Amino acid sequence: MSNILNRINSPADLKTLKEDELLLLAGEIRQFLLDTVSRTGGHLASNLGCVELTLALHYCFNSPSDSIIWDVGHQAYTHKILTGRRDVFHTQRQYQGISGFPKRSESAHDAFGAGHSSTSISAGLGMAVANCLKGDPSKVIAVIGDGSLTGGMAFEALNQAGHLRKNLVVVLNDNEMSISKNVGALSTFISRKLTGNYYRDLKKEMQRLLQNIPAIGGNILHFARKAENSLKGFLTPGTLFEALGFEYIGPVHGHDLPQLIEIMQNVRSLEGPVLVHVVTTKGKGYQPAEDTPDKFHGVGPFDIKTGKVTGGKPGAASYTGIFGDTLCKLAEEDEKIVAITAAMPDGTGLTKFSRTFPDRFFDVGIAEQHALTFAAGMATEGFRPVAAIYSTFAQRAYDQIFHDICLQKLPVTLALDRAGLVGDDGPTHHGVFDLSYLRHLPEMTVMAPKDENELQHMLKTAIYSDQPIALRYPRGAGYGVAMDSILKTIPLGVAEQLAKGEDITLIAIGSTVYPAMEAAEQLKAKGIKACVINARFVKPLDRNLILSAAGRSGCVVTVEENALQGGFGTAIMELLSDEGAGIKVKRIGIPDRFIEQGSQAQLRKDLGLDAAGIAQVAEDFLKTGNQIQPGLVRVK
Amino acid sequence: MSNILNRINSPADLKTLKEDELLLLAGEIRQFLLDTVSRTGGHLASNLGCVELTLALHYCFNSPSDSIIWDVGHQAYTHKILTGRRDVFHTQRQYQGISGFPKRSESAHDAFGAGHSSTSISAGLGMAVANCLKGDPSKVIAVIGDGSLTGGMAFEALNQAGHLRKNLVVVLNDNEMSISKNVGALSTFISRKLTGNYYRDLKKEMQRLLQNIPAIGGNILHFARKAENSLKGFLTPGTLFEALGFEYIGPVHGHDLPQLIEIMQNVRSLEGPVLVHVVTTKGKGYQPAEDTPDKFHGVGPFDIKTGKVTGGKPGAASYTGIFGDTLCKLAEEDEKIVAITAAMPDGTGLTKFSRTFPDRFFDVGIAEQHALTFAAGMATEGFRPVAAIYSTFAQRAYDQIFHDICLQKLPVTLALDRAGLVGDDGPTHHGVFDLSYLRHLPEMTVMAPKDENELQHMLKTAIYSDQPIALRYPRGAGYGVAMDSILKTIPLGVAEQLAKGEDITLIAIGSTVYPAMEAAEQLKAKGIKACVINARFVKPLDRNLILSAAGRSGCVVTVEENALQGGFGTAIMELLSDEGAGIKVKRIGIPDRFIEQGSQAQLRKDLGLDAAGIAQVAEDFLKTGNQIQPGLVRVK
Repeated sequence: MSNILNRINSPADLKTLKEDELLLLAGEIRQFLLDTVSRTGGHLASNLGCVELTLALHYCFNSPSDSIIWDVGHQAYTHKILTGRRDVFHTQRQYQGISGFPKRSESAHDAFGAGHSSTSISAGLGMAVANCLKGDPSKVIAVIGDGSLTGGMAFEALNQAGHLRKNLVVVLNDNEMSISKNVGALSTFISRKLTGNYYRDLKKEMQRLLQNIPAIGGNILHFARKAENSLKGFLTPGTLFEALGFEYIGPVHGHDLPQLIEIMQNVRSLEGPVLVHVVTTKGKGYQPAEDTPDKFHGVGPFDIKTGKVTGGKPGAASYTGIFGDTLCKLAEEDEKIVAITAAMPDGTGLTKFSRTFPDRFFDVGIAEQHALTFAAGMATEGFRPVAAIYSTFAQRAYDQIFHDICLQKLPVTLALDRAGLVGDDGPTHHGVFDLSYLRHLPEMTVMAPKDENELQHMLKTAIYSDQPIALRYPRGAGYGVAMDSILKTIPLGVAEQLAKGEDITLIAIGSTVYPAMEAAEQLKAKGIKACVINARFVKPLDRNLILSAAGRSGCVVTVEENALQGGFGTAIMELLSDEGAGIKVKRIGIPDRFIEQGSQAQLRKDLGLDAAGIAQVAEDFLKTGNQIQPGLVRVK
Repeated sequence: MSNILNRINSPADLKTLKEDELLLLAGEIRQFLLDTVSRTGGHLASNLGCVELTLALHYCFNSPSDSIIWDVGHQAYTHKILTGRRDVFHTQRQYQGISGFPKRSESAHDAFGAGHSSTSISAGLGMAVANCLKGDPSKVIAVIGDGSLTGGMAFEALNQAGHLRKNLVVVLNDNEMSISKNVGALSTFISRKLTGNYYRDLKKEMQRLLQNIPAIGGNILHFARKAENSLKGFLTPGTLFEALGFEYIGPVHGHDLPQLIEIMQNVRSLEGPVLVHVVTTKGKGYQPAEDTPDKFHGVGPFDIKTGKVTGGKPGAASYTGIFGDTLCKLAEEDEKIVAITAAMPDGTGLTKFSRTFPDRFFDVGIAEQHALTFAAGMATEGFRPVAAIYSTFAQRAYDQIFHDICLQKLPVTLALDRAGLVGDDGPTHHGVFDLSYLRHLPEMTVMAPKDENELQHMLKTAIYSDQPIALRYPRGAGYGVAMDSILKTIPLGVAEQLAKGEDITLIAIGSTVYPAMEAAEQLKAKGIKACVINARFVKPLDRNLILSAAGRSGCVVTVEENALQGGFGTAIMELLSDEGAGIKVKRIGIPDRFIEQGSQAQLRKDLGLDAAGIAQVAEDFLKTGNQIQPGLVRVK
């Protein structure tokens, strides 16, 4: 069993180890990661890939006085294990356990929280500048993957860092892969490693150039251009970073621990912005993960021996899968349909589309802002772009949705996957704000399907709506309902009534419709007759259906997996108020606090978003407070 | 008078001109720009800087079948004049006139609308890809300034463009200045122009390197590193773009029209992504603008002979000015206060701060995302960062406000200038969504001052609140009220009652408080007694004061310069509903459509946000609809 790892309770313990012990420790950590993640699930490949890098950083720097910032944070498991969280590591991503990402409230060693990509250099530069102002010699290290580097804000930060020239170490963890195979010119450029022929060819080229030097006074510009063109094939990855004012060190072998330690020791003493380019292998040391790093990026429990995921009962198809299949079906018939992802072809269900229609598929990298303006550009030329992005990541492109899509009324379909509570990834990943941040944008239509069958119809509806439109749907499996074989379009703003009842009106949207139906059954058993409406649209609302149903019962409960502030329930409230209806509304949704991780079922139960919770609220509301009392306000 | 310009009604007319006529035309356009902008105000320096560039583009390309996209768009005046809008050009930025920015609904020649920065390459790439799929040989040209290039999404787009290798021309309009003096390592690098010594020094360096070549089989990596380091001083701006897969052409003299035309003709025939680096002078041809391009970036009416702005009566100090002065005052006493701007030191009133506290002032470039995460990084180290950003541009950083500031509860002050209706810049610039997009974020506090005196107290309140907090204030002058000399902090969530009355309760926020007070006076003349509340906080609301005032009148009107969906009035409505109060709320604010340009006074009048509008709504509401009628809903 583990001999050395059990003695490591903080990075200080690491510093007493000899080289051979450090090497043994690396192996023990790999085994520990495998043992734990194979039971709990989690991010595996990225973490196996940076065991040595993490050891070298904690060996050479002094956390927490030196700040180590992990971009995205799904590669910080070894960091967590080394910084006092070994014994609770098995609770990671579990309900009430430790987070799967760095989190300031969890440990002083987590210098900056993450979950979304490309923030580490900005945060690190802020800390480096702060240290400089305070006269604090502490070091700041931002560890960022090559995928995260495609996010624009990383570039914004590099640009300022190169200019300010403060002491900041950026470690480029280059595994030539973000969540999926990395894309973009930058990636091609960075992977242009030095080869054995490099020197020989460089010499030859230089001699050729010198032979051709024109007399002084000749066309200098022309010659300079020629020289530059000739030499540009010899540029190394360093060029780009040096152009931005960084000292470049690399490429460094990311699994050679002694070399990494030697380099990081040297880096400690350097002044100004430094970029260390470390080449690592995703899944390192575990063959199944090295072979299929995509599969082991985020993985459920699996069998270590075979690499096969365990316990995955073949349930109902996922919303993601239905989305991808439906898009392929529609695209078969319409060559104007194109699909866009921001580095998430698998996660958003677009892999099949990418293989079937490679010319009409665009992975733009981790670049949600660009993704949506790129989509807008295609829309101006008559295409029907569908951009599939997780709800939480689409937050990055809020301004582009406003400025490039809505303001120009361009027909872009936003397919917002992972909307609502996402489960294990926790507060950085819950997609619980989209209804609020989209609803106030003019020209925007927002809808959510009650099940996977409605999803396929809504996708067709969106694509042929000829206007900005967002479609949000949850993470996970559908209900296994029958799927219509003919796709139809739903008239915009038309809801459906699913149950009749005049005691109370339950108006639900998306993932909360089935629970609301079930709640109505539970209420019926208690003699309360509830009308249930599947709103389908958050904007525009089905004015007539909602007003008439609300008017009959005089008592409305709304249900949504979105923030209560400015969301779906609020939209219903605004409608009733604007229409002069004296009807009280009780809203069920996500309260005004960040929601921690846990299974979706657990979180929904906690927040009263399951059938029992909805029925209880409805019953209480009917008993205690549904009658309007004009002018009366209780001031506690 | 103008001879040639009068004959130019579309770009086609341009193509019949000879070189000498084109040169004369350039002069006529400059004069026309000067004559018009000196009367109407507008963006002058940037437009004078790209007269020749615009002529060359329209001469060599065929708009609108070729798409010319102007980044930000404040340099598109010559484009507008050449594309059929000469005779209405004097209406630009005026109420019901043409826009000061490219706008698709205005002309087929405006290929993509703008107003915010750094979107052009993304949009252009979308069009280029669309053309390729359609087999359409039309060209796409994105014209982007060196300032806009610091925005991350421009980099995201370059990265994908270099990878896709479609036909896209990016024209880098390099005037070494965005709105203020450009910042960042990129700027330093791009301005590294070729000099006469370039060739001589390069030759010397190459010879030195060749002399030192080690025997084959020596330390190749070491030599290659050395060679690269030696040569990197010789890298030209092209390196960076070539690294990203672009063919680089330049630098090109931006005011040499024949040369520009020759180059653009050549560029037409090139395949793949091309970057043309054009060096221009802001304000070219008008000495006062060349001397002080900052002043003539966006300028009011001025005297052409002297360059002096006319009609600028010395009125009350602006909110922007008071913000800047107050921040200096507070920073004098507290060295932990730092200020951050995204390329807007003048616009946000931080110029004085930047001079007084240069070490504590950070201009990050046009990079709002980075700005706020950088601020968050400083906050983790005990500083009190104040990020001053226009409300509309802060939309770019919505995700960073969520992910880096609120989720970690870091004490960053967001000073949102230009909140509400901004006037002449129109729909891209109105800051009318911030209350809606900030209010649903947990841990966020949102406030707005009724006047400039309250602004100074609120700024102190924000900085010492030790939590995420946003302070939004309008464009333009305050009321000239007396300024308290001692700054105080306002308890979070405490409103103030400004007038008593039991017939109706007017609850206003920020810029609408004084109009609401005036409306109360007008109502009083009609025998209606209105209570007026200055809410001060949108979040948290002053529960007790609002509930008791609302309870007394039983009739609430809310007023805000923000979208009606999910904004301030909605917050009041949510509060009253959650408290079980049967009180009807009439909300006055920005309706669910984009608001065109016009003076702030005109727009406020149109939207019923002035005193007369508020009084009218309140009176009608009292007459017709304020009484709650439980259960009754009118379905039209």
